[in-house]
Amino acid sequence: MSKLTYFGPGPSQLYPEMDSFIADALSQDICSISHRSKEYIAIHKKTIDELRQLISLPDNYHVFFLGSASESWERIFNNCVIEKSHHFVNGSFSKKFFSYGEALNKSVTKTEVPAGEGFDNPKASIPSNTELITFTHNETSTGVSTSLEDIYETRKQFPEALIAVDVVSSLPYPKIDFNQIDTAFFSVQKCFGLPAGLGVWLVNDRCIQKSDKVKKALGTLGSHHSIPELLGKSTSHQTPSTPNVLGIYLLGRVAEAMNKKTVQILREETDKKAEMLYDFIEKCPYLDYGVKEVKHRSQTVIVADTTIPASELNKYLATQDITIGAGYGKNKTTQIRIANFPAHSIEIVERLIKALDTIQE
Amino acid sequence: MSKLTYFGPGPSQLYPEMDSFIADALSQDICSISHRSKEYIAIHKKTIDELRQLISLPDNYHVFFLGSASESWERIFNNCVIEKSHHFVNGSFSKKFFSYGEALNKSVTKTEVPAGEGFDNPKASIPSNTELITFTHNETSTGVSTSLEDIYETRKQFPEALIAVDVVSSLPYPKIDFNQIDTAFFSVQKCFGLPAGLGVWLVNDRCIQKSDKVKKALGTLGSHHSIPELLGKSTSHQTPSTPNVLGIYLLGRVAEAMNKKTVQILREETDKKAEMLYDFIEKCPYLDYGVKEVKHRSQTVIVADTTIPASELNKYLATQDITIGAGYGKNKTTQIRIANFPAHSIEIVERLIKALDTIQE
Repeated sequence: MSKLTYFGPGPSQLYPEMDSFIADALSQDICSISHRSKEYIAIHKKTIDELRQLISLPDNYHVFFLGSASESWERIFNNCVIEKSHHFVNGSFSKKFFSYGEALNKSVTKTEVPAGEGFDNPKASIPSNTELITFTHNETSTGVSTSLEDIYETRKQFPEALIAVDVVSSLPYPKIDFNQIDTAFFSVQKCFGLPAGLGVWLVNDRCIQKSDKVKKALGTLGSHHSIPELLGKSTSHQTPSTPNVLGIYLLGRVAEAMNKKTVQILREETDKKAEMLYDFIEKCPYLDYGVKEVKHRSQTVIVADTTIPASELNKYLATQDITIGAGYGKNKTTQIRIANFPAHSIEIVERLIKALDTIQE
Repeated sequence: MSKLTYFGPGPSQLYPEMDSFIADALSQDICSISHRSKEYIAIHKKTIDELRQLISLPDNYHVFFLGSASESWERIFNNCVIEKSHHFVNGSFSKKFFSYGEALNKSVTKTEVPAGEGFDNPKASIPSNTELITFTHNETSTGVSTSLEDIYETRKQFPEALIAVDVVSSLPYPKIDFNQIDTAFFSVQKCFGLPAGLGVWLVNDRCIQKSDKVKKALGTLGSHHSIPELLGKSTSHQTPSTPNVLGIYLLGRVAEAMNKKTVQILREETDKKAEMLYDFIEKCPYLDYGVKEVKHRSQTVIVADTTIPASELNKYLATQDITIGAGYGKNKTTQIRIANFPAHSIEIVERLIKALDTIQE
């Protein structure tokens, strides 16, 4: 059966070996084993070990499994904020993080720039005594990236605040110094090329300590997936309730495959493909950069202004077994989004560019 | 490759056609489509339509997808309780539902019986002005079932309170009159025979109206998966954030297969297999009923006291390609749990009984 290659920014193309990983899971009865069995514990541990190696996660970090990355937003507020948080907002997902704080009646403040723009001097407007500062490393809605150096600079200016970084659609591409942030989270259906339905929350010991303070101050950390509940089971390589066992297994297999390939090569290939795509946008008559500042252009979600809507482009691309993403929200017809994830090979990106190059206004 | 048949109470045996449903999902690129696409919307709608038909869900109910059934506990408190709730506790999972309310600083009360016992007169001790009354239809930890008639009787006594029913390990077996309750929830890895990682929350219009009152009274419904957020997207057959698309697709396929078989036959087979298993427990020298009262014995999770631990029994059962569940928590070595789900055919239950019958003390 002819299958498309998906360049939508998530859910997206499955990791190349995904079908065989799923076949292995089925033949090994991964979906039927108890989540308290030694077989499950081995899978849980292996996945976290592979992930730690892949992203160089320090020992003072814990890895928790949630239902989705969006759930992390709530868990971070419930467990790490008594009152005040500050948010760098430059698109729909960073705004949603902020709005979760509003919904929870926290005192949330924000530094906001228009969609398509980024931050150059992020420390400027953060209120004092902010407990948490949040960044969206890669705004999936706009294709704007926030520089890690700017995040680290904020850490220097506000050493007492916890720093949370949304790496939903970028990890494992960015080489993050986790010692300069405190928590991060991602979805598996973006760069890891898995079926959706699993969020991964990375939490350091400062967050654990903060959850103690929040519990003392507010008397509650929420109920489901609180840090103490997650941590308590995590020490024995388990989860508080039945997790997405298949997703955890598949994440381990993908992280293992990425480790074998090496994360360096994965990053080099990502850079090369991003360069190819941006070079094409530069010369393509019907496309223009969605993000004007070079510094803020994402390497993993390439966004372009277009005079031909994605729906039209996809009609031709379908004949080449390719599909791309439309712009997000109100930019649905005026922008396209092209995922540049590890599942997208250099060859298929070349094919995409060749196909787009055939299209005329 | 030789595969075991899993009688553990969840994750458990996959639905018989699961491998081919997953193969269909992969060949149709279900895991790569956007969760905002018309293809996804059709899947979402179909799954809910099949589920509605299967369990005779009235039109005034909405079907929401969560990360797990445990998440439903938190969502019910956040959206449906201003202050007071009352809980019927007869095992670890009903107790967890109660404890989520404690963690959220609600005024929770409970009627509790020892593990292995059930409720005969549930209305007795419910405080007045209770906003929510919760039952666990099938206590997966103990194999105790709560009679639907008793739940409906409670409704008559407390018509103002919302009634929530945990049907995690029983639906679609019980023929529930949803007009006599207000909300229910289940996991897909029990009776539906799916990989774990998806919770389904059924919510009627009284719960929706209650969430309005809670919002007015408390100023918050939580942030992630609040009722207005879920409802807003549900009307266009979508979810607020990227859901477990594969799980939703597979649930639709299983519900469709169950509808073709008819839920009546599924219920008759469940009763027949339960009778076979309980008859065997009656005569087996090393087993005894885990639930002494006939009325309280679950038809879907059969629990027996045992003088031979599950770990020992499973050594022999493995030679017959079968595995059963150990007792829950402190009953790990003194009880066994046998799932009697639709994925377990009459033939495989016969094989299990024959194998257990060979074992001697």
